[in-house]
Amino acid sequence: MVRAKAHKWVYYFGDGRAAGKAGMKDLLGGKGAGLAEMTNLGIPVPAGFTITTEACVEYFRVKKTFPKGMWEQVLADLRKVERSMKMGFGDAEAPLLVSVRSGAKASMPGMMDTVLNLGLNERTLQGIIKKTGNARFGYDAYRRFIGMFGSIVLGIKREKFERQLENKKAERGVHHDTELDEDALKAVVADFQALVKAETGKPFPQDPMEQLTLAIKAVFDSWYGARAVTYRKLNNIPETWGTAVNVQAMVFGNMGETSGTGVAFTRDPSTGERRFFGECLLNAQGEDVVAGIRTPLPIEALREKVPSAYRELLRVYKTLERHYRDMLDLEFTIQEGKLYMLQTRVGKRTAAAAIRIATEMAKEKLIDRETAILRVDPEQLDQLLHPMIDQSAKVRIVAKGLPASPGAAVGKVVFTAEDAERAAAKDEHVILVRTETSPEDIGGMNAAQGILTARGGMTSHAAVVARGMGKCCVAGCSAVHVDESAGAFTVNGVTVRQGDFITLNGSTGDVILGEAPLIQPKLSKDFQVLMGWVDQTRRLRVRANADTPHDAKVARGFGAEGIGLCRTEHMFFDVERIRAMREMILADDVDGRQRALAKLLPMQKSDFLGIFREMAGLPVTIRLLDPPLHEFLPHTEEELAGLATDMGVPLEALRAKNKSLHEFNPMLGWRGCRLGITYPEIYEMQVRAIFEAACELAQRKVKVLPEVMIPLVAHVKELSRIKELLIRVAHETMTRYGKKIAYTIGTMIELPRAAIVADEIAKEAEFFSFGTNDLTQTTFGLSRDDAGKFLPFYVDNGILPRDPFVAIDQEGVGSLMQMGVEKGRSTRPKLKVGICGEHGGDPSSVEFCHRIGLDYVSCSPYRVPIARLAAAQAVLKNSKKKRTVSDTR
Amino acid sequence: MVRAKAHKWVYYFGDGRAAGKAGMKDLLGGKGAGLAEMTNLGIPVPAGFTITTEACVEYFRVKKTFPKGMWEQVLADLRKVERSMKMGFGDAEAPLLVSVRSGAKASMPGMMDTVLNLGLNERTLQGIIKKTGNARFGYDAYRRFIGMFGSIVLGIKREKFERQLENKKAERGVHHDTELDEDALKAVVADFQALVKAETGKPFPQDPMEQLTLAIKAVFDSWYGARAVTYRKLNNIPETWGTAVNVQAMVFGNMGETSGTGVAFTRDPSTGERRFFGECLLNAQGEDVVAGIRTPLPIEALREKVPSAYRELLRVYKTLERHYRDMLDLEFTIQEGKLYMLQTRVGKRTAAAAIRIATEMAKEKLIDRETAILRVDPEQLDQLLHPMIDQSAKVRIVAKGLPASPGAAVGKVVFTAEDAERAAAKDEHVILVRTETSPEDIGGMNAAQGILTARGGMTSHAAVVARGMGKCCVAGCSAVHVDESAGAFTVNGVTVRQGDFITLNGSTGDVILGEAPLIQPKLSKDFQVLMGWVDQTRRLRVRANADTPHDAKVARGFGAEGIGLCRTEHMFFDVERIRAMREMILADDVDGRQRALAKLLPMQKSDFLGIFREMAGLPVTIRLLDPPLHEFLPHTEEELAGLATDMGVPLEALRAKNKSLHEFNPMLGWRGCRLGITYPEIYEMQVRAIFEAACELAQRKVKVLPEVMIPLVAHVKELSRIKELLIRVAHETMTRYGKKIAYTIGTMIELPRAAIVADEIAKEAEFFSFGTNDLTQTTFGLSRDDAGKFLPFYVDNGILPRDPFVAIDQEGVGSLMQMGVEKGRSTRPKLKVGICGEHGGDPSSVEFCHRIGLDYVSCSPYRVPIARLAAAQAVLKNSKKKRTVSDTR
Repeated sequence: MVRAKAHKWVYYFGDGRAAGKAGMKDLLGGKGAGLAEMTNLGIPVPAGFTITTEACVEYFRVKKTFPKGMWEQVLADLRKVERSMKMGFGDAEAPLLVSVRSGAKASMPGMMDTVLNLGLNERTLQGIIKKTGNARFGYDAYRRFIGMFGSIVLGIKREKFERQLENKKAERGVHHDTELDEDALKAVVADFQALVKAETGKPFPQDPMEQLTLAIKAVFDSWYGARAVTYRKLNNIPETWGTAVNVQAMVFGNMGETSGTGVAFTRDPSTGERRFFGECLLNAQGEDVVAGIRTPLPIEALREKVPSAYRELLRVYKTLERHYRDMLDLEFTIQEGKLYMLQTRVGKRTAAAAIRIATEMAKEKLIDRETAILRVDPEQLDQLLHPMIDQSAKVRIVAKGLPASPGAAVGKVVFTAEDAERAAAKDEHVILVRTETSPEDIGGMNAAQGILTARGGMTSHAAVVARGMGKCCVAGCSAVHVDESAGAFTVNGVTVRQGDFITLNGSTGDVILGEAPLIQPKLSKDFQVLMGWVDQTRRLRVRANADTPHDAKVARGFGAEGIGLCRTEHMFFDVERIRAMREMILADDVDGRQRALAKLLPMQKSDFLGIFREMAGLPVTIRLLDPPLHEFLPHTEEELAGLATDMGVPLEALRAKNKSLHEFNPMLGWRGCRLGITYPEIYEMQVRAIFEAACELAQRKVKVLPEVMIPLVAHVKELSRIKELLIRVAHETMTRYGKKIAYTIGTMIELPRAAIVADEIAKEAEFFSFGTNDLTQTTFGLSRDDAGKFLPFYVDNGILPRDPFVAIDQEGVGSLMQMGVEKGRSTRPKLKVGICGEHGGDPSSVEFCHRIGLDYVSCSPYRVPIARLAAAQAVLKNSKKKRTVSDTR
Repeated sequence: MVRAKAHKWVYYFGDGRAAGKAGMKDLLGGKGAGLAEMTNLGIPVPAGFTITTEACVEYFRVKKTFPKGMWEQVLADLRKVERSMKMGFGDAEAPLLVSVRSGAKASMPGMMDTVLNLGLNERTLQGIIKKTGNARFGYDAYRRFIGMFGSIVLGIKREKFERQLENKKAERGVHHDTELDEDALKAVVADFQALVKAETGKPFPQDPMEQLTLAIKAVFDSWYGARAVTYRKLNNIPETWGTAVNVQAMVFGNMGETSGTGVAFTRDPSTGERRFFGECLLNAQGEDVVAGIRTPLPIEALREKVPSAYRELLRVYKTLERHYRDMLDLEFTIQEGKLYMLQTRVGKRTAAAAIRIATEMAKEKLIDRETAILRVDPEQLDQLLHPMIDQSAKVRIVAKGLPASPGAAVGKVVFTAEDAERAAAKDEHVILVRTETSPEDIGGMNAAQGILTARGGMTSHAAVVARGMGKCCVAGCSAVHVDESAGAFTVNGVTVRQGDFITLNGSTGDVILGEAPLIQPKLSKDFQVLMGWVDQTRRLRVRANADTPHDAKVARGFGAEGIGLCRTEHMFFDVERIRAMREMILADDVDGRQRALAKLLPMQKSDFLGIFREMAGLPVTIRLLDPPLHEFLPHTEEELAGLATDMGVPLEALRAKNKSLHEFNPMLGWRGCRLGITYPEIYEMQVRAIFEAACELAQRKVKVLPEVMIPLVAHVKELSRIKELLIRVAHETMTRYGKKIAYTIGTMIELPRAAIVADEIAKEAEFFSFGTNDLTQTTFGLSRDDAGKFLPFYVDNGILPRDPFVAIDQEGVGSLMQMGVEKGRSTRPKLKVGICGEHGGDPSSVEFCHRIGLDYVSCSPYRVPIARLAAAQAVLKNSKKKRTVSDTR
């Protein structure tokens, strides 16, 4: 990188003119670009300059020396700042002080602290004191500067400065820094200087130019500091970016009653209401707001105290919002009645506020509808769709588990699924607390308000089922020790007994003692408006994973356009049904199995009747039996004995059956279509139930669109074999009823092999549905139930960017999906392709599904709106390459 | 398919001239092509003609009518046959009888039977009787014809004819068909005719032309018969081929003492010795040889009885062998002193014979060396490398399990690994019998002569380990019920007690009571010669999977060119070591683990010293710890209690540890590099042991080439993280010894994701080794330990062509491998790639590895010669596309 002599390393801003602008974030960093933009808009900003990220990169290239010409440009721009501020850097009379701050392209919080008050020394200190007439202010500013410079630039441990300050407070018998008087602060300055001498062997640098040089280098060097390196690794920020450095004239909000400081939002960040909103402190510095010693005033307080500055602030915020076309977060300081803006950036907001701001700004023609859609974070919507704990309430949090399924729930503790069902029958609210759940607990989980487990991750049984049900769940809360026999659990020293009330916050993982007050969500009109735009924009269809008529109804309410996954096995765990299921499993031959299945047929049919009715006119994808048979048998010796008595079979036979069905790796075992091929009578019963239900509804003019889905196909011959059976049974049934039902037959793509030979499989399959849970497990060779020992470590240490069970691993699993889509459509161009894994409700995964050309995503009912929004954003993000959203983001 | 009028459907052969030839197997089928070729060679073949496979295809296309012109051509060729044989079809004086046989391109045994003696009716029967002067012969021929035609062509159940024949024998008080006299046979003919009338409503067809028409159609129709369809499905034979029909003049070997019939081989099929070898019967038909009523004579018996025919036969066999350049299997009939050849095809042979024939034919310049290499079936070599049961011995087979590891073993039954080790210490031969084995049994398995398990498939723990050890194993013998506490097992009603002798045949799966006599293998000089040619031909290197110095030595003896997989975990199961291993697992922190690992270091180092010494100068790939930790802990409550006492830890703590390590799907759990990343101290110890051993040997001038292999990598960052640690420890160690060892670091590719992102992984890996066992498990989502419930059904029913754990599933798993190789070399062109799964010893898989450009295969020591041969054949099969091997194959 040989650069011409005239290369520009430094960008000045001040007095209404800046060399940079908002669009130059790559070069100037977020902060520098914002300062330049404000300056250009004629907004009062203390003069300063930004040293570019290029300079940082070049600095490292030339072995930590300033790039050629940079220092000269710094000096030139410093002169301009002096002129603008009418002060001199190092001047004894009117000394210019500056702040030095890093500012990378992306916000990297905590990467590096700020050095304030740079330019102070023994001489300029006296100038400040003389000019302000406030010696305490002067010494306070000086000791702060030595402390910051000493720790950040000279590398002395911050604690050493703090200890000296503490000593001084102890000596003076005071508690707060503010209570130290001029003398005390003067002594602290002396102590700090002595500390610097002792630690570095040299006195504290008195030359302001030396101070500036060292501070700029320290900011550059911080780019490779441990914190920054880690942060970049975790956030995938390229090392090549470098950081910019902002040098800006200091202004002070603590110079009397016409000075002050504050933060403000251009609209209400909680509700989105269009009103100026903020807080301020008079005669104070930004640090004081953070320290929380004084209670800030509402921003309106400025109206009386410093009316002209307030009027100016109103003008500024309106200008900025109109300019950036987004709700902004502003930082300002008023020095002796004069307003200075120090920062502008897009403001954080709640989901409700995001929706209101986006729709209102669109109506105000500030932004277009597409931009409005992009302004709401789909993940944030989750807040709106579940009951929440009233944030104003004081609650006692006793432990934190994984936020496995959002929302909140209050109820009495129960420890068994049966107790939960009994309580629900009496209309009692309960929380089911278990070490871990199993499929037999489904009924109890459904009956409970929420589920708390001691073991299992975000994709454990409890978590997956709860999310499917839209039910609050805190999982893997390892502090909880369940002692079912004692009817209690202990958690961090507290014992909670059966019948005691607890509250769960499934959005945060909090476990709370007692009954916390809940707020029910209501979907605002703005929400409906936005979703209307969303639905006009998206290409992907959004379906729901629903196993019951209730789920189907909820899903339809949230805008689901069909069911993408109806799991038939959950239906079998009902008390009455599991008995017939077990009879089937224990039967020794086809005849015995068929007898037991005949009992299940009417029950299964009634499920389908309910679901089809709720989804009238919309497609319903029904997955035939998937889990291994041993999931339906009890496992403890005691339960087995009970079952033996109950069913009138010898315990020994039951034990033997249980043992013979045991699997080392059930995930990779005798399940899915492997069951359907070896015991075809099971699928036969299921298909009969589907078509009997469909025909009966057709007789009543209800439109039913069943899509029969075969799970765990690895080889096309598995599919073709089952398809034969299926078509035969479907046609027999339809002939019997004299009805014709339009139906399709397809398959899950949930094994790597299926994706690889998708061209073959598509010859037999009319649709594909990616089962990305299992596909992720097999592609990674990673059991989600067992990953707890290393997967969190992997994510924390940046070995994997994200939990692949939450967001699709696009590089690995995603490649297989893309291959599956392309190969599948190579032999069947009109192949319908969807996804029904948990990922169907994750925004980044939805975008990926859009990009690879899927027809629909299917997710839990409560995530349907999230998926709809993500699908619309996917269109916008991918249609015009990267759309320009406001540049301050 | 509109055909010109002149299209040729029928190919004549007779009198030294045939329209077809050997190369026309697609059109004439194997049998027809052989008959044509012999005719053209001037060899006496009864005249006849072949109706082409094209005619069969066209027959079905035109709705089961003969293709236009076919019947006319049949009639024309039938006239030629009449002229050649000087007889007339349907002629009352000199009636021509013909056989009608199917003959597809590939041999399809049992697809359809033969119709003999076609042309017989009441009139021609009399002609035959008059001509032969043998009325019994005539009636016997007629009743056979009616029976065959009735069942095959007219579709009457064969059993009905047999029942009538049985009735007649009972009536006459005789046991064998041959004991029925003329009168009885005449009565049988009448009975058969009545049966045909009763079943079809029509008399037995008397018109020979009608007989011929119906027989040809029946042969065509048999192409879609149930047996043929199933056979084709199982053997991947396309439906589109169709079958040819051979119509040939009958000759009779049962027309007196100068007639006879026989089968012969041009060389000895057992030893390969170059001598004419065969058996014959005088005055007999082929059927009589099969029936086994009379004991056949050695072929030399013909020399005296029919000298001219014998001389002719010698001339014929020499001509044919020289022509086909292979050992042939011949069928002939001598009718009244005149020799007729009825069939020629390549003869089946033992492995020893195959090798001898191939090498001798090459020395005789009959074939070239390349052809010689292709003439030996690699899989067959297995016979030669293990002890075998003397086939002449009478043995009592009580059950059949899976032939999990070949060879044979005799020993006393023991039920525990400890008993096996104790017995071995006393030089006793034992067979270890267990329900299933676990890694703790390794010592006992090694001490035993053979292993018998009641559960587990071809790739169960017992099977995999036994094959690795080259030790006989019969696995998954479900008839065996082990009652360890009683010290006995029962098998099909027999109780076998500890200490009783049994014999296992690991090549067939037989379980034999008592001590069967064994034959030790010796590798012939011919074998060495052939393997010399093989090694000059192959491109793939062949390594062995070996975990001990003993295995390494055996492997080198079999020609291994290095170790492709040295599993370090087997070393930890030794009594003394497992204690330290368990200490490591039970430790609560890094320090505790390091203390325990320090005890393992010298032991592990001594293993490496031994292995490196045996493999001096050759590369040794060492895989770092792979299995989940719970494999090293005992599982029963009793064993746990013992361990607790032994190690002085509370039982409760041990139980808790065991529980916390439990995994739902251990195959997909906390294992491989996931252990190495979370507990880096384990890999650190292992790498230190490797490099200390290597350095110490380097000091003694032993050349060591270690290749360190990281298991279960899914993401490149796993590899790069471990690699850092590894390089650091290696260099520390080398620096300490002042030695420089050339080493490489690579990874297993055993997860689909690894293959998909192989380009990324290859940036860090210097070599890849495909772990196709696990890759198959994850690609199919198929646990090899649990597949027993459906995988055999899948293979039996043609859902999968072969067990994917035996032969690489090229379409699925193979695609991933190919992707892995291509992507890997896209970023590291010189990437070394091998395979170390069980498939490395399977010939079809070796060929696949050759085709996709692997550098080496690695297999169990005893399969090294098989892999070498397969590798050479892969070169030959793929270099000149398909080489022309003799066409009769």
